[in-house]
Amino acid sequence: MNTIDKTKFPRVLIVGGGFGGLQVAKKLADKPVDVLMIDKHNYHTFQPLLYQVATGSLEADSIAFSLRKNFSGQKNFRFRIAELQKVNAEKNTVDTTIGEITYDYLVLATGSTTNFFGNKEIEHYAMPMKSIPEALNLRSLILQNIEEAVLLTGKEEREPYLNFVLVGAGPTGVELSGALAELRNHILTEDYPELSKEHMRVILVDTMPRILGAMSEQASKGSHDFLTSMGVEVMVNVKVNSFDGNEIKFEDGHTIRTKNVIWSAGVMGVVPDGISKDIIQRGNRIKTDSICRIDGSANIFAIGDVAAMITDETPKGHPGVAQVAIQMGNHVAKTILKLINGEPTAPFKYFDKGSLATVGRNKAVADLGKLKFQGFFAWIIWMFVHLISLLGFRNKIVVFINWTMSYLTYNGGARLIIRRFNNEAPQQEEEHLAKSDG
Amino acid sequence: MNTIDKTKFPRVLIVGGGFGGLQVAKKLADKPVDVLMIDKHNYHTFQPLLYQVATGSLEADSIAFSLRKNFSGQKNFRFRIAELQKVNAEKNTVDTTIGEITYDYLVLATGSTTNFFGNKEIEHYAMPMKSIPEALNLRSLILQNIEEAVLLTGKEEREPYLNFVLVGAGPTGVELSGALAELRNHILTEDYPELSKEHMRVILVDTMPRILGAMSEQASKGSHDFLTSMGVEVMVNVKVNSFDGNEIKFEDGHTIRTKNVIWSAGVMGVVPDGISKDIIQRGNRIKTDSICRIDGSANIFAIGDVAAMITDETPKGHPGVAQVAIQMGNHVAKTILKLINGEPTAPFKYFDKGSLATVGRNKAVADLGKLKFQGFFAWIIWMFVHLISLLGFRNKIVVFINWTMSYLTYNGGARLIIRRFNNEAPQQEEEHLAKSDG
Repeated sequence: MNTIDKTKFPRVLIVGGGFGGLQVAKKLADKPVDVLMIDKHNYHTFQPLLYQVATGSLEADSIAFSLRKNFSGQKNFRFRIAELQKVNAEKNTVDTTIGEITYDYLVLATGSTTNFFGNKEIEHYAMPMKSIPEALNLRSLILQNIEEAVLLTGKEEREPYLNFVLVGAGPTGVELSGALAELRNHILTEDYPELSKEHMRVILVDTMPRILGAMSEQASKGSHDFLTSMGVEVMVNVKVNSFDGNEIKFEDGHTIRTKNVIWSAGVMGVVPDGISKDIIQRGNRIKTDSICRIDGSANIFAIGDVAAMITDETPKGHPGVAQVAIQMGNHVAKTILKLINGEPTAPFKYFDKGSLATVGRNKAVADLGKLKFQGFFAWIIWMFVHLISLLGFRNKIVVFINWTMSYLTYNGGARLIIRRFNNEAPQQEEEHLAKSDG
Repeated sequence: MNTIDKTKFPRVLIVGGGFGGLQVAKKLADKPVDVLMIDKHNYHTFQPLLYQVATGSLEADSIAFSLRKNFSGQKNFRFRIAELQKVNAEKNTVDTTIGEITYDYLVLATGSTTNFFGNKEIEHYAMPMKSIPEALNLRSLILQNIEEAVLLTGKEEREPYLNFVLVGAGPTGVELSGALAELRNHILTEDYPELSKEHMRVILVDTMPRILGAMSEQASKGSHDFLTSMGVEVMVNVKVNSFDGNEIKFEDGHTIRTKNVIWSAGVMGVVPDGISKDIIQRGNRIKTDSICRIDGSANIFAIGDVAAMITDETPKGHPGVAQVAIQMGNHVAKTILKLINGEPTAPFKYFDKGSLATVGRNKAVADLGKLKFQGFFAWIIWMFVHLISLLGFRNKIVVFINWTMSYLTYNGGARLIIRRFNNEAPQQEEEHLAKSDG
């Protein structure tokens, strides 16, 4: 395979085009460095809105943006579709699916993936939702199972197809359960006159005593009340034992017949080979110092979800949210320029801008510093913050129109099964589609 | 499997939710009939804009519309995702993937698929573009091959990845070659600074002496000139002999190294089992009488691309265009109501509203009765006609915004490789995706 020709400038190799990686590359524009980004996809994913792709309210392409297009015009930037296989720190290279690539500075912005905590059965049958293909698979599954329910008669037979169990009540679980409840309340009987609302259940479960555990007590209570008012069954202090594709079993012996289990109970860092196991922290994150440099290295950085910056002030690292990745990306770009110039570096300080989570129409919860509030105003802020954070003017407009249409009609979204999903098929690392009959 | 419960009204079973099937169902709203539609997809595809999905200018969901949503509120309408397997005319039932379904009147609106004229090698390696999954596969292939070219060095190595050969210069071939030329002229070097325009060739070939053979001489000449001015190499009177995935060979011995052959050289009707071979006409179309009733049957109709209405006035049937399907659908709905009421039926008359084809920015050709013109005004009409024909207010708005953005920036579209396409993989009848790593 080829190596990528070098320029006269030191090369900063960024692995991953998420919030963190994007920020590093952007901040290095017009600087005397050779910026090379690799990602296994040619687009950036705006993960906070993935759940709207899964429920068919938004299209995949509204929340994704071409990495090439984003950096078109940034002269020191190059991009390659490639997957990182191994870091060879001793010779400053990485092995990738397109060959060996050299670097002067390496930024690991590889993010996180769903953590099934080693349960292979759950991993096989439960649906994760951390990427666009996963969100599209989930959408197909939801719609296929509703279609399947239409073909059956009687509550008993339909039950497993129309029970939706969401495991993990962080923002993803809360937002997705809210969106599914709205699908039931406003769309189900319109699109499927054969079914009745009572046939569909949305159940949100968590091992912790309250939902949105990372947010304030007020946010937990507010979102709990909102979800309950929309008909979501919220179960806290509940642990999942198993799921075999037809029935989910809880530790207390309780079971629910369902074919739809959505797993958002945890994430773990995506760590490449070549990183010493000794510096892997809880959640499979790589230990870094206060400038995001990984333990024991002079020129390898980790940022965002894959990084655990363990310092006296942050003994557990930072939360796995977009703002941390963005701010770390910003800091690492500056740090690399300082290192190149032999200037002293400064430790990273996280500025917490607050947290938002939406539950549904007119309903969101906000923790902004000491300001904690729930309801319509929080929902307006949530929409505003997400719209301005989306990459690309076209995406902002298209999402805005979709939201407006949904708000006015109670029935946004296309809900198309473009590619059928088959959970019985053998799992594969990456999809390579063959020809379809269409 | 289940049968679908009957109502007290005679059942009209419509197979296919394309332009024709949609029209039949719509015209039967509020009538004393039980309308049941089956389609293998849960959406209607607006085929005239598929080429913009393939080149990444539009999203799949902008040109597709949920069949359930479209008929939500039409009380006598029901829908099932199912594929027709066999017509059992003697007992008025069809076999489908969801079981046997009875009918009183059957409307075959199954449309057409790509015709490779029996050449299995070409069928394997060339890309068709008759459905949304096919258009998405083509998009992935185009983008993957450009990415592949970036990894290679030198014109010789890159050539097969950047040569695009379109076989068949009907509206699809003409529109797609225009869109590819615009990708080269306005986007290629912006997104891929490693490449130069001269590396990418777009070649449109046809066996006939002129392109857009079904339109006027003026339209042929106009589109030919437009394409040439955009850098498309137009080759007429040329017949393809073979394509092995790396090289296309023509009858005159001429060859072109390419991995991208897009086949739009012909279509054939999708005829189910159970229809007598004796009534199959050229292009695999089913012979019908002047009320679209298939030869030898009292209650089975065929409309649109799958129908060949052979009468004295139309010895070759009608052209395979949306307008024919829509008008036939309209006529068949009325005819069925007349048959139910024992009223006399009237023969179908096609009203030709004219033809339009677009070549690119500001460039289209129009044959509207005696009025034949080319250029900016034809392009405005083309856009207007396509916008108003799209199903769904949201789709009209989203497409309009995308077109406006593309017009203003010369760079619309997201161009994301959401699912990789692999032409070496074994072909499969329908895609069933397994889990992806995302």
